[in-house]
Amino acid sequence: MEETFVPFRGIKNDFKARIVCYKQDWTSGFRAGARILAPTTYIFFASAIPVISFGEQLERSTDGTLTAVQTLASTALCGIIHSIIGGQPLLILGVAEPTVLMYTFMYNFAKDREDLGHKLFLPWTGWVCVWTALLLFLLAILGACSIINRFTRLTGELFGLLIAMLFMQQAIKGLVEEFGVPKTQTEGTNQIALQPSWLFGNGMFALVLSFGLLFTGLGSRKARSWRYGTGWLRGFIADYGVPLMILVWTAVSYIPVNEVPRGVPRRLFSPNPWSPGAYSNWTVVKEMLNVPLMYIIGAFIPATMIAVLYYFDHSVASQLAQQKEFNLRKPSSYHYDLLLLGFLTLLCGLIGIPPSNGVIPQSPMHTKSLATLKHQILRHKLVSTARTSMEKNMNLSQLYESMKEAYDVMQTPLVPQMPPTLGLKELKESTVALASSHGYIDAPVDEIVFDVNKDVDDLLPVEVKEQRLSNLLQASMVAACVAAMPLLKKIPTSVLWGYFAFMAIESLPGNQFWERILYLFTAPSRRYKLLEEYHATFVETVPLKAIALFTLFQTSYLLLCFGITWIPIAGVLFPLLIMLLVPVRQYFLPHFFKGAHLQELDAAAYEEAPAITFNMSYDDQSNHANISGGEILDEIITRSRGEIRRTQSSKASSSTATPIGGDIRPSDSPQVSQTILSPRVTALRGESSLGSNGRS
Amino acid sequence: MEETFVPFRGIKNDFKARIVCYKQDWTSGFRAGARILAPTTYIFFASAIPVISFGEQLERSTDGTLTAVQTLASTALCGIIHSIIGGQPLLILGVAEPTVLMYTFMYNFAKDREDLGHKLFLPWTGWVCVWTALLLFLLAILGACSIINRFTRLTGELFGLLIAMLFMQQAIKGLVEEFGVPKTQTEGTNQIALQPSWLFGNGMFALVLSFGLLFTGLGSRKARSWRYGTGWLRGFIADYGVPLMILVWTAVSYIPVNEVPRGVPRRLFSPNPWSPGAYSNWTVVKEMLNVPLMYIIGAFIPATMIAVLYYFDHSVASQLAQQKEFNLRKPSSYHYDLLLLGFLTLLCGLIGIPPSNGVIPQSPMHTKSLATLKHQILRHKLVSTARTSMEKNMNLSQLYESMKEAYDVMQTPLVPQMPPTLGLKELKESTVALASSHGYIDAPVDEIVFDVNKDVDDLLPVEVKEQRLSNLLQASMVAACVAAMPLLKKIPTSVLWGYFAFMAIESLPGNQFWERILYLFTAPSRRYKLLEEYHATFVETVPLKAIALFTLFQTSYLLLCFGITWIPIAGVLFPLLIMLLVPVRQYFLPHFFKGAHLQELDAAAYEEAPAITFNMSYDDQSNHANISGGEILDEIITRSRGEIRRTQSSKASSSTATPIGGDIRPSDSPQVSQTILSPRVTALRGESSLGSNGRS
Repeated sequence: MEETFVPFRGIKNDFKARIVCYKQDWTSGFRAGARILAPTTYIFFASAIPVISFGEQLERSTDGTLTAVQTLASTALCGIIHSIIGGQPLLILGVAEPTVLMYTFMYNFAKDREDLGHKLFLPWTGWVCVWTALLLFLLAILGACSIINRFTRLTGELFGLLIAMLFMQQAIKGLVEEFGVPKTQTEGTNQIALQPSWLFGNGMFALVLSFGLLFTGLGSRKARSWRYGTGWLRGFIADYGVPLMILVWTAVSYIPVNEVPRGVPRRLFSPNPWSPGAYSNWTVVKEMLNVPLMYIIGAFIPATMIAVLYYFDHSVASQLAQQKEFNLRKPSSYHYDLLLLGFLTLLCGLIGIPPSNGVIPQSPMHTKSLATLKHQILRHKLVSTARTSMEKNMNLSQLYESMKEAYDVMQTPLVPQMPPTLGLKELKESTVALASSHGYIDAPVDEIVFDVNKDVDDLLPVEVKEQRLSNLLQASMVAACVAAMPLLKKIPTSVLWGYFAFMAIESLPGNQFWERILYLFTAPSRRYKLLEEYHATFVETVPLKAIALFTLFQTSYLLLCFGITWIPIAGVLFPLLIMLLVPVRQYFLPHFFKGAHLQELDAAAYEEAPAITFNMSYDDQSNHANISGGEILDEIITRSRGEIRRTQSSKASSSTATPIGGDIRPSDSPQVSQTILSPRVTALRGESSLGSNGRS
Repeated sequence: MEETFVPFRGIKNDFKARIVCYKQDWTSGFRAGARILAPTTYIFFASAIPVISFGEQLERSTDGTLTAVQTLASTALCGIIHSIIGGQPLLILGVAEPTVLMYTFMYNFAKDREDLGHKLFLPWTGWVCVWTALLLFLLAILGACSIINRFTRLTGELFGLLIAMLFMQQAIKGLVEEFGVPKTQTEGTNQIALQPSWLFGNGMFALVLSFGLLFTGLGSRKARSWRYGTGWLRGFIADYGVPLMILVWTAVSYIPVNEVPRGVPRRLFSPNPWSPGAYSNWTVVKEMLNVPLMYIIGAFIPATMIAVLYYFDHSVASQLAQQKEFNLRKPSSYHYDLLLLGFLTLLCGLIGIPPSNGVIPQSPMHTKSLATLKHQILRHKLVSTARTSMEKNMNLSQLYESMKEAYDVMQTPLVPQMPPTLGLKELKESTVALASSHGYIDAPVDEIVFDVNKDVDDLLPVEVKEQRLSNLLQASMVAACVAAMPLLKKIPTSVLWGYFAFMAIESLPGNQFWERILYLFTAPSRRYKLLEEYHATFVETVPLKAIALFTLFQTSYLLLCFGITWIPIAGVLFPLLIMLLVPVRQYFLPHFFKGAHLQELDAAAYEEAPAITFNMSYDDQSNHANISGGEILDEIITRSRGEIRRTQSSKASSSTATPIGGDIRPSDSPQVSQTILSPRVTALRGESSLGSNGRS
């Protein structure tokens, strides 16, 4: 993306690029049929459950002014609008933890002012939203998102890990609180439940329920590679395991009935949206004129903070949902989405609900689940093609030819200029690589040399089912949640804490920052094992010392950011600290690390050699007219590198388990990709073997 | 083993065979150094914890006449004597669940007799033991153990699974009881702890503690293959993980202190052996003369039951500890051990403690842990030899030569006649097979082609460190337990239930009956995966229908046996039901299954073609003078088959995880072993691939 700040250019480009795909966004979604429900349900739970919990948090800190009904309403409203007219439909919107922190801060400020107080709090936040929206408009129009290239992997992954830490903190805090007297008491809680003995029992029960959900939830995600049960059942559990487990553990929470008082275990608490009082704060726009002028102007101060936060959070969530490894084919839309976010913020402010923005880790989770979906669809097609070919006794190259044809049919190029043979070449290259690695390139084709079920998994590149339907459906389901509040109340809070831990853990794989931390803790004698699996290039090209130093710096910075969220009022400044990483990365880090190493560990587009490859990162499909042959070649190499690696991975047969590295842009030269089995690597392997002692 | 019933011949043969190895049994143990402590501690816990729990069970059902002090004392006493003068030192002795059932039955009978009652119960059981001992002497002298060949895998594995079910049942029952009012109350239990609220809390805490122990215990056994931590730490956790976890979870049980009454969680309850009353029942022998004559004669009836039980249980435990796959080099000793068991039963009866016998699953667990130990010792030696060779720039064949030499030194043949090149040939064959499978048989040797740490694991055959030290030490530690009773009382009972579940699960791998059940539940499309790993030959040679039918029969029989243990008094007859399997197998099953299939599924020595190979099963080292060349060849083929298979297993790098099939005697012909990659198998693989649908 060019860093031009010509007004409206960014928005115009985004809009032009996305409108071309708009129809296909819908048709593609509907063509997926009932399968689309798997990623939809998965994201719906990932989106709704934290929002409900944030709503409870808000209710406590705003004395009941805002509740889970409002946070759910905001998430549903913004989600539906974004999924229909938004730019990037992979982006998931929702009320996020930082928003909750901001609103808490504002409420603490407002409640003590005589001329504002509890009554005018929502109208005042309406003004804050107005200012925020104006600032977001300004940022979008002036092309602020052009500098998103400077939000490198360093920044994005640090933010991702920070959110994971906040989720895990909430899980732990929630579990500890289960042992204490609850702060808000559900109507109908038996006072007996507050005796020390029942508090102890409640806490222990909470441990059982939350760990039960966590372990079974994590286990169910791997169901596709289980050995037992029919394929249908395994697929169903892998797709719907988490919602299923929430149901199961909610059912388990109802098992102890005799003598156990109401309130053990504790369940979700939220007002009934059908009660008459629940809508009293939906007429905020009328009361906004009652806010004193001084406060209307003063609202500009929190508005700037929120605008900076949303600008960063929304863009990074979108960026993480569009990482290079996903091989997305449709263009990004940062400016246009920021503009729309401005409108959504305005709308939410006027009807007195907290605004939503792009959320982490739900957005990248959404893309990952759609990659699994696409994989299944492609797989199904190719397996049946391969079977038909084999029945006709075709030879190996004929088999590949017919598979390529089938693959081709599945790829509907959006733009005529897009080279239609891209995917085919890819498939051919990877199949040839696979066949020669198995040593039977010229063998006659039958099931002995080509195990359809297994080999097709190895052949398929990572692709994502890019469409709008799953986003619309999940947002509609969140809307249905508001109506289904009485049902949701049956879920024990402890299941919720288990789910928070589940989300934190699910967001870790693919985060290179996290993988580097693990790498440093790996025993030297076992490091070679990493090379045998899918791995990022830095493992081979950057010396351990540089990796360690870089990771140490990043970890310290992460802990600093995490620490600052604990400070009551200054805590809301934490987005600024993360934004500060951008100049730190650009001007400070190059003094301590070699350019080549930095590029491997944290490839920044503006540092890469041929400036022309900049465009590859986000717009690769948006301006095919002026794409050069060299770029296409570069693209193919980068992708086929991924292929070759994946065929080495023993995990590749399970599409969900396929680790996704998380490159933000093409960072490796072809030379790098060829070192996989070069003497350097085997030497490293040898070193580590020699370095270990006999016991290991 | 010949089925001769010439008096004393069996005992004499056993004694002569074992006395040759006696010195080596000790020197070999001491040469292992501190490493011997790993299997020792592992078995000590596996032995002591159930015995303590059985003691508690006995205390409840005998109104405190017998307690954990007595069961521990018996286990320690018999264990020490057996480890020093017993025949097969791999066999672990202990008070077993069937003994507890028997004593409960006898107490219920005695307590209501006026001229016997509570007071003369122990003297009367003294008489029962006298009769039992006489019967055991008779069985041993007449060579009853000769027919142990007829206790096929069918019987042994069914009994093993039955014990696993009883352990699991105890774990579940124990956990459920944690929610109720305890039957025996520890002194000092606060009455508050019996309120419904605290009972609920106690139950939930028990769930946390027992599942915590189970999961961390199972996890720690796999520590050797972890990627993190130093080799030393991983080895330590794998070796001592279970005792460590018992410590950890006991510590965790002390975390909730404030307001939690004494008695939550419940802890082990047993009398202090240092209190003056604890020894009142140690003078039973004097009182035995006070038992009325009628009861002395009547004692013969329970004595026959116990004798049958012990004859079966002791022999099967010994058999399972000496399965073919362990490649034991020292002879068995069934008759002599049964004779010794008679003396031990007599001794226990005279001092008023319940007798011990060979226990399942501890005995096979003992052998497995010693196989791990031997593997580590061999591995250490070979790795350092290989490193030295590589430093000297030797080529591949020189490397193997020097490794063979090192391997040779490690093998101290017990008898001069034993061909000393056996292990070497084995090593050579397997290394050549490995090298050619990797495709670099003629390559120059360096770390690239020969990864020392990894490849040595693949080369090593399964061998067991056969010695007496670990058995003696574990029995001595059980003796120390009696003294350390006040410390043991700190362990929560729920940790104990978790440990019971752990033992049940640990006993499953290697049980072919269990693996067949799993195989039947494996999705047809995934069955080929089993062939890629270590697997028993029946998977390839027996049709699925026969496997299913055989397994179904075995499962029904198992459930029948399990059901009968629930019947209050007839329950003690369950050993008879298992003994009945022997004729059922011999005369009934051959009508329903093809001979060849039966031989694969349940190889019985008396059904095998060349009668001469009978001798291989247990006595292969005891009479080397008259061993034929053909037998040696057969032996080598059988073993090298195991090798080739193991090199295909991805699990092989972790010695603990190496599945042990559980052949009781050599059952496969060389032809069978060569079908591994033959068209049959690939066809099977093809079928299963074709049969599956796209989703799997």
